[in-house]
Amino acid sequence: MALHFERAEFAARRDRTLAAMAEAGLDGLLMFKQESMFWLTGYDTFGFCFFQCLYLDADGSFVLLTRAPDLRQARNTSLIEDIRIWVDRDGATPADDLRDLLAEKGAKGRRLGVEYDSYGLNARNGKRLDAALDGFAALADASELVSRLRMVKSPAELAYVRRAAELADDALEEAHRLTGPGADEGDILAAMQGAVFKGGGDYPGNEFIIGSGPDALLCRYFTGRRRLGSTDQLTLEFAGAYRHYHACLMRTIPVGPVPDHQRRMFDACAAALEACKGALRPGRPIGEVFDAHARVMDGHGFRHARLNACGYSLGAVFAPIWMDYPMFYHANPEPAAPGMVFFLHMILMDSEADLAMTLGETVIVTDGEPERLSRMPLELVCR
Amino acid sequence: MALHFERAEFAARRDRTLAAMAEAGLDGLLMFKQESMFWLTGYDTFGFCFFQCLYLDADGSFVLLTRAPDLRQARNTSLIEDIRIWVDRDGATPADDLRDLLAEKGAKGRRLGVEYDSYGLNARNGKRLDAALDGFAALADASELVSRLRMVKSPAELAYVRRAAELADDALEEAHRLTGPGADEGDILAAMQGAVFKGGGDYPGNEFIIGSGPDALLCRYFTGRRRLGSTDQLTLEFAGAYRHYHACLMRTIPVGPVPDHQRRMFDACAAALEACKGALRPGRPIGEVFDAHARVMDGHGFRHARLNACGYSLGAVFAPIWMDYPMFYHANPEPAAPGMVFFLHMILMDSEADLAMTLGETVIVTDGEPERLSRMPLELVCR
Repeated sequence: MALHFERAEFAARRDRTLAAMAEAGLDGLLMFKQESMFWLTGYDTFGFCFFQCLYLDADGSFVLLTRAPDLRQARNTSLIEDIRIWVDRDGATPADDLRDLLAEKGAKGRRLGVEYDSYGLNARNGKRLDAALDGFAALADASELVSRLRMVKSPAELAYVRRAAELADDALEEAHRLTGPGADEGDILAAMQGAVFKGGGDYPGNEFIIGSGPDALLCRYFTGRRRLGSTDQLTLEFAGAYRHYHACLMRTIPVGPVPDHQRRMFDACAAALEACKGALRPGRPIGEVFDAHARVMDGHGFRHARLNACGYSLGAVFAPIWMDYPMFYHANPEPAAPGMVFFLHMILMDSEADLAMTLGETVIVTDGEPERLSRMPLELVCR
Repeated sequence: MALHFERAEFAARRDRTLAAMAEAGLDGLLMFKQESMFWLTGYDTFGFCFFQCLYLDADGSFVLLTRAPDLRQARNTSLIEDIRIWVDRDGATPADDLRDLLAEKGAKGRRLGVEYDSYGLNARNGKRLDAALDGFAALADASELVSRLRMVKSPAELAYVRRAAELADDALEEAHRLTGPGADEGDILAAMQGAVFKGGGDYPGNEFIIGSGPDALLCRYFTGRRRLGSTDQLTLEFAGAYRHYHACLMRTIPVGPVPDHQRRMFDACAAALEACKGALRPGRPIGEVFDAHARVMDGHGFRHARLNACGYSLGAVFAPIWMDYPMFYHANPEPAAPGMVFFLHMILMDSEADLAMTLGETVIVTDGEPERLSRMPLELVCR
């Protein structure tokens, strides 16, 4: 059994969660987010693809309801002692099993929080949950309760984030080494992801984004690798992940002669990133970071090429997305606080010019200037 | 723009979907599964982590509602022409945007199918969808409509599955090459996943499973790599993925002297795999495959160590899980049919002996004996 945090730290997290539950008037919390389970107990699995629930009672006790393949997984990775199993069969009704378990825990007639906004609880299972608990308990959406507690990282968590950032830098060095005319995207991806694995790191919450030519203007993974041309552009958005904690980087690497327009795009990205760091201050709404980004991009004449968001929080998250709560968009009122970890991504996708430029890195919020985690310079690297 | 299938094949898939919709009495289909979108249009993204819906009207037209970062993604990867964008802002209500779009398509007062059983529609968004469409249209759960059409693969799909199987074999060869006393799991994982990427393949729908020592008894990914001891066991469950089509393999590789008990576990796995292939026949309920597996495992005295399922369908799927519909469990009435692709995994996890043994591979259902896709022998490989 390998717990990746001290038991005292897990206990402190549980106590903070119980306090937040009490404040919200909740007698229990039904968790479906794998992120919440990992943070509170260490439980580490992709078994959330099936119906699975971790219940935290106001008395501080945990019960996990999951499938048989996750029984040993929970024992070997978490501090959960009470693990119940539901069995695959035609017409299986795990939500009813959950109600029976809650009855046993004395939760009948009480007020329970539910993580409805979770990949671990799809809409069909959500309806079944509501039907099974109808008249049994009062349910309230508590999707953000644990997510908000996870925003500020502890020193032990920041140590993993820093290691993740080293792995991301290792991956970027591989990209710089291999990118050039005729290079195969598949080889580049293998070397970048390989650097993370060889360093003891994890799969990222979503695929590394890799695209060249016209597809350098995309910011999602897609299937189909190609070889780089003699004049090309390669966009890479990727994460080092360690103990599931993420640190992201983003770059566009021009190959061959660099158009002046693309250099101006880089200048705008660099200036916007600097402006974002200036706006990311404790107590200030993080929507102001987006506004700083937009002001610079628009001032450089790239309003048509920028996105409606310029980054988000990072943490220990699971598939299908490494993005964590909250995001930088206009008017987001969430205040920044020291110990928060953010990915700042400056993205310009100019469809008219068919040119991409991006610059992104991960920082920790401090009392002053945010702390950069990457050792790599913020300069335009061409190949 | 790269479509990975002929337009005629996409058109045929759409027509089969329209026929199934007509049979189910549906005037339109609200799709939230990325798998359905990829199969019908080529649309390839992990943007399903946000609210996103592909609507297919009974008149055969598609409309996609998604976020701005997926506008170009849809244009560059799919045949969808009508793409609408909803904007991130505090209090964004994309379900209302969807209702307005449906009104424009003349869907008011009609009967619409919804993919509720989807990672792309979590329980919170499901509630918002139901609220936005309450009194607007009649909704019916149609989660399996496209999934069922996807079960039998076309020749063009099988070509991608075969390529995926080659990549899985390449990964297994890397595992055999690197596994041994003192080997680092991270190096093994890097080489295995790297083999898939170098061959032009994709990230799998979930992480490769890798575990040794006591954690060789797990069948999920978890964080934390270790070095193999002089006497050890390494369990690997992994997929080649090509154009998102999966072909899986599973092995446990003993390191050092092999206990007789573990050899007997291998013999049971090999016999169970053979029995499963004997039971996997067109027209027969796939629950019989599980029963054949259970009979052999129990007959070899390993009832305590086997699981409640022994495999599942494979196809073009997205995170967080490569498992596709349907699964081999007791009494599953779904009949097998030629062109279906199945992963047969024989898993024995003996907690008393602290020993694991697994054997799994991917086959295509034919009129007779299922076709093996792996070139690797089904023998106990030790290191």
